[in-house]
Amino acid sequence: RYFHFWKLPGRVMGIRLLRFTSVVIIVLLLVAGALTALLPSVKDDKMPNLRREPKPQSQPAPDSFTLIMQTYNRTDLLLKLLNHYQAIPHLHKVIVVWNNVGEKIPEEMWNSLGPHPVPVVFKVQTVNRMRNRLQNFPELETKAVLMMDDDTLVSAHDLAFAFSVWQQFPEHIVGFIPRKHISTPSGVYSYGSFELQNPGFGNGDQYSMVLIGAAFFHSGYLEDFQRQPEAVYTLIDETQNCDDIAMNFLVAKHTGKPSGVFVKPVDIRNLEKDTNSGYSGMWHRAEHLLQRSYCVNKLVNIYDGMPLKYSNIMISQFGFPHYANHKNKM
Amino acid sequence: RYFHFWKLPGRVMGIRLLRFTSVVIIVLLLVAGALTALLPSVKDDKMPNLRREPKPQSQPAPDSFTLIMQTYNRTDLLLKLLNHYQAIPHLHKVIVVWNNVGEKIPEEMWNSLGPHPVPVVFKVQTVNRMRNRLQNFPELETKAVLMMDDDTLVSAHDLAFAFSVWQQFPEHIVGFIPRKHISTPSGVYSYGSFELQNPGFGNGDQYSMVLIGAAFFHSGYLEDFQRQPEAVYTLIDETQNCDDIAMNFLVAKHTGKPSGVFVKPVDIRNLEKDTNSGYSGMWHRAEHLLQRSYCVNKLVNIYDGMPLKYSNIMISQFGFPHYANHKNKM
Repeated sequence: RYFHFWKLPGRVMGIRLLRFTSVVIIVLLLVAGALTALLPSVKDDKMPNLRREPKPQSQPAPDSFTLIMQTYNRTDLLLKLLNHYQAIPHLHKVIVVWNNVGEKIPEEMWNSLGPHPVPVVFKVQTVNRMRNRLQNFPELETKAVLMMDDDTLVSAHDLAFAFSVWQQFPEHIVGFIPRKHISTPSGVYSYGSFELQNPGFGNGDQYSMVLIGAAFFHSGYLEDFQRQPEAVYTLIDETQNCDDIAMNFLVAKHTGKPSGVFVKPVDIRNLEKDTNSGYSGMWHRAEHLLQRSYCVNKLVNIYDGMPLKYSNIMISQFGFPHYANHKNKM
Repeated sequence: RYFHFWKLPGRVMGIRLLRFTSVVIIVLLLVAGALTALLPSVKDDKMPNLRREPKPQSQPAPDSFTLIMQTYNRTDLLLKLLNHYQAIPHLHKVIVVWNNVGEKIPEEMWNSLGPHPVPVVFKVQTVNRMRNRLQNFPELETKAVLMMDDDTLVSAHDLAFAFSVWQQFPEHIVGFIPRKHISTPSGVYSYGSFELQNPGFGNGDQYSMVLIGAAFFHSGYLEDFQRQPEAVYTLIDETQNCDDIAMNFLVAKHTGKPSGVFVKPVDIRNLEKDTNSGYSGMWHRAEHLLQRSYCVNKLVNIYDGMPLKYSNIMISQFGFPHYANHKNKM
């Protein structure tokens, strides 16, 4: 017997037809979808919306960092530096800690001069405190923090290199300004730099702190900082100083190793004299260094011991600026 | 009833007397012993016995290293360098790998010029092989090895510092001579130094090897070296070269990181021209560098991949020779 196409039972015919039609439709949809995906996306040629909220970042690139810059009474320097720092490679976001209490943030001006390479957040402070910059900012999304003083200019090359060094030493403060403490026979500590006597561990000098005014460190330490003894905050607030020394104590206690790794900067400058505000930094106060020695001793008291450790490792970038920096007479 | 002394049974009397006598004797012995211990020891004022075996070292100080120096046809340089290196701080022992087959070791002369700060062992070799220095010598007791070519003079300051750096990077080859490989579009590798194109990871140069002719590394790697594919030994033997490249491959494979850490030497010199033997090192052979590129490619073949990784970290000693090495314009 042979089957005549139109003699098949209606249901079988219908199912076969239905199947055939469904398959055709699905194939057509797939083709259409593929074509749509391949179409060039429509570019927006209009002027960018300057008031637009920055796109929420899903997961920031693992090798990126957040710049935290505290500012007081030097908005001209701040804006000058922001032009430079906003373009540093691997920068994810900038957090400006606005210590100019009562003064409006320059957001309108900032936006009018956009677009900007990265989002910049102005965090208005209610009190002008040194330790405002050590808050655990919710906007902070990266593991790495770059902290800069608002009068310090470090070249992009130096920052890119120091960031790569931090990635190899993530539990340390990796930065450009080394300092040390020394012990005296009386047991009282002194704070200083190269002018102080070498601690006496072999030849050359040692450092036991790296200042956070130009350094990379792990954002986890900002979290840790919120959990310190109250006396630490009191000390920083009463001196309006020493937040960086306190951070070095914190890191040294945490790691049991030297808190910092010193990267020798090729080009670092202090722009203080360039400000129109007439305001010069805290470190010009007569008692500044004495205060810092005072802080070292207070912190030893608070933490019941001296956790800072010495290091004499100085890191430079191989073959930069010039290969001659590693040539030898061999 | 009363007991008359002389009427007590003989045994009881005897035991009491015996006890009393024993106690007296023991006390006298203890006193004598104590006095003997307190007596000043007799100093030996005679001329030291020059032929005396060096005291067997029980457990070498954990922060000490063994110098391994292979020598061929440059005994004058060897002895000159031994006078310098035998006095390096933290040195435990020297192992001289004597590649002068058939020639007597200068032991008599060495002993006649004693005493020496550390033991020096001359290991007589039966064949003049480059890789003789990479044996797992039984005399090697320290975790750290310092390997030096027999024509290379590095200052004690540099060595003391580099040793302290090795202690912070014990799984790396920490030394003074950086080299690199580069990849070419054809997939063939080339070996070289600063004269080769930068590998192109950001600015500045990179290195992917630290030569073992002037470097510290973990003695465990000598053990590992005995367990390499036979083809590695064949390669080194047929070229009489590349043992150091092979070690870098080994270390990089083991750590998954750059094999070396480069410490910039303050004072490193090649004494080659000072030898009376007229013998100049292997690296003067016309094919030397080409051979090393050849070795890199062969080793990639043997190990089925390129394990070497780049680094641009250059380490110097903070504040040495002069504090000016870390001052900046800030």
